Amino acid sequence: MTIKFNVIAEDNSTCARLGKLRIGRNELETPVFMPVGTQATVKGLTPEEVLETGGRIILVNAYHLYLRPGSELIREAGGLHRFMNWPGSILTDSGGFQVFSLAQLNKVNDSGLVFQSHIDGSYHEFTPEKAIQVQMDLGADIIMAFDQCTGFGVNYEEAREALRRTTRWAERCLQAHTREDQALFGIVQGNFYPDLRERSLKELVDMDFPGYALGGLSVGEPREEMQKILSVFGPKLPVDKPRYLMGVGTPEDLLEGMSRGIDMFDCVFPTRTGRTGSLFTRQGRINIRNSRFKNDFSSLEEKCNCGVCTGYTKAYLHHLFRQKEILGMRLATYHNLFFLSQLMAEARQAIGRWDFAKYKNEFLAEYQ
Amino acid sequence: MTIKFNVIAEDNSTCARLGKLRIGRNELETPVFMPVGTQATVKGLTPEEVLETGGRIILVNAYHLYLRPGSELIREAGGLHRFMNWPGSILTDSGGFQVFSLAQLNKVNDSGLVFQSHIDGSYHEFTPEKAIQVQMDLGADIIMAFDQCTGFGVNYEEAREALRRTTRWAERCLQAHTREDQALFGIVQGNFYPDLRERSLKELVDMDFPGYALGGLSVGEPREEMQKILSVFGPKLPVDKPRYLMGVGTPEDLLEGMSRGIDMFDCVFPTRTGRTGSLFTRQGRINIRNSRFKNDFSSLEEKCNCGVCTGYTKAYLHHLFRQKEILGMRLATYHNLFFLSQLMAEARQAIGRWDFAKYKNEFLAEYQ
Repeated sequence: MTIKFNVIAEDNSTCARLGKLRIGRNELETPVFMPVGTQATVKGLTPEEVLETGGRIILVNAYHLYLRPGSELIREAGGLHRFMNWPGSILTDSGGFQVFSLAQLNKVNDSGLVFQSHIDGSYHEFTPEKAIQVQMDLGADIIMAFDQCTGFGVNYEEAREALRRTTRWAERCLQAHTREDQALFGIVQGNFYPDLRERSLKELVDMDFPGYALGGLSVGEPREEMQKILSVFGPKLPVDKPRYLMGVGTPEDLLEGMSRGIDMFDCVFPTRTGRTGSLFTRQGRINIRNSRFKNDFSSLEEKCNCGVCTGYTKAYLHHLFRQKEILGMRLATYHNLFFLSQLMAEARQAIGRWDFAKYKNEFLAEYQ
Repeated sequence: MTIKFNVIAEDNSTCARLGKLRIGRNELETPVFMPVGTQATVKGLTPEEVLETGGRIILVNAYHLYLRPGSELIREAGGLHRFMNWPGSILTDSGGFQVFSLAQLNKVNDSGLVFQSHIDGSYHEFTPEKAIQVQMDLGADIIMAFDQCTGFGVNYEEAREALRRTTRWAERCLQAHTREDQALFGIVQGNFYPDLRERSLKELVDMDFPGYALGGLSVGEPREEMQKILSVFGPKLPVDKPRYLMGVGTPEDLLEGMSRGIDMFDCVFPTRTGRTGSLFTRQGRINIRNSRFKNDFSSLEEKCNCGVCTGYTKAYLHHLFRQKEILGMRLATYHNLFFLSQLMAEARQAIGRWDFAKYKNEFLAEYQ
């Protein structure tokens, strides 16, 4: 087995848990946040820098790499780790979410999805077998089952149909997957209908995946809707397997997810919002482009020890963003990832000392 | 005196020379190439990385910083070094060249230049006194006299008039300059007319600047025209002062400049061309976007020990550039600066062993 997961402590007043996840030769502590490297690069940073910020596992998009430069080319290169020179762990998602969110979806049937590329409109078909083949070519450590994602507001029949398909596809993914050095995770769907989520969970648990994700959340729904599903189904995911909440990455949502027993998270939020000049501080996010920072010669966040906060002033970051300098986007990305890593590390410590609820409340009181 | 310059070896068959330039607490070897950090950042790189590539002194543009964020703000920040967190040395140019090349020149008279900002069309006046004040506010180690630059093809009378003005402005710059921790260099003008260059040189040498630049070259003239002026006036610049050839930075021109006794160079070429995917190799420049690199899993330059060449393949760099990833521009900039630094270091060694002509010929034979 390529992964090994142990829960080593459980919080006493929430469902939060502290775990150790061994992935190949790497070992990391959970809960863990995975920076997103959509196109085999965490935008603007070198692999060394991602490690410096505390990143140990990144998410890369099978959909994007399948289109450009092609998953076969990456196989030829010796796999994703070698291609992008990343010594940490990698999780690829299957493309199901990107077909739903980015591509023009052309046809859905039990066989698979036909879609048009968001780059050039070219036609492609993804079946469960194809999605697994692509991910075996890419060679990530953890790969995801191919699912049909549905948006918020979809009616019950449509959601049920997508769920039925997702379960059948999950079986086909398991069949198609032959690389023993990869762990294939299942994705619980069912939209925002609790009985469909329940059914999806049961069907997938019967298949005994080595890890489970909650998918189809963070798709534009009101925050309470996500929390309803999360609060019920986070704790219901198998206790002895890593639990992964897909697409979640604000400090508030990470803390909420942890308190519901989630072990893994990914989101473009810290990196994408960073590139627009939106930076995490203990008192909430600030937009560094704001003119009040023009001659603010203090550091971004006093309590942060990252190279950005120790080396540069807000005035300089403001200047870089106003002048659209690349270095601004880099430093913002670096700081935001460092900040989230720090949050996760503090949260893990709090879980270990049965103090997570207090930590969460104090963090949020200052942050909001 | 803020700088101290010693020639420690002279080549036997060319005018090339090896020197030590002490600037404040920093000491560097010449000939030296200065990466350009137009807006107080070498585009895409952190100061640490500029040091890693071998950069010891950078050029920053007074014109750009005067417009944004303002030289007074940088003075308030504690000067350029602190503002941008750069521990090396800094040279600022005076803005004369940028008014000529970037801004809309509105009025020239003996008092100074009135120009419109290239950003928003706003009107500004630069006099020698103003240009020096701006550079004193910025606080670089070496600053440049305010000159009137003229383009290739300008008639004799116009060139003579600009030269006359440049000499008078040089005097006013010396008068206005009061910071003892900065060295003010003079700029020899005179367009492509040897007798005007001769006159400019004589007039400036009489003023005893601590360093001299050849300005008004690399302004769009045929390469032979620059070489004609360089071959005569490089060696004629005072032997005991640093000699600086402004705006030059291709490997060919650097080698040519060194053989004419030049000690300092600056150019946006390695960084700007790098950001378009044009990368230095021993066999000449390649454009990494070219499809022949799509599945080329070899390193960019076998003989280069920079982190880009040791960590990534051409195929990955190709992918980054094709996908317009920021990391591509970063890595290209890093490699190109490292490559030029390496070239300069090799050239210095060759000068030290009376072997520069051979080194130059061998490098160019492989490069072209």
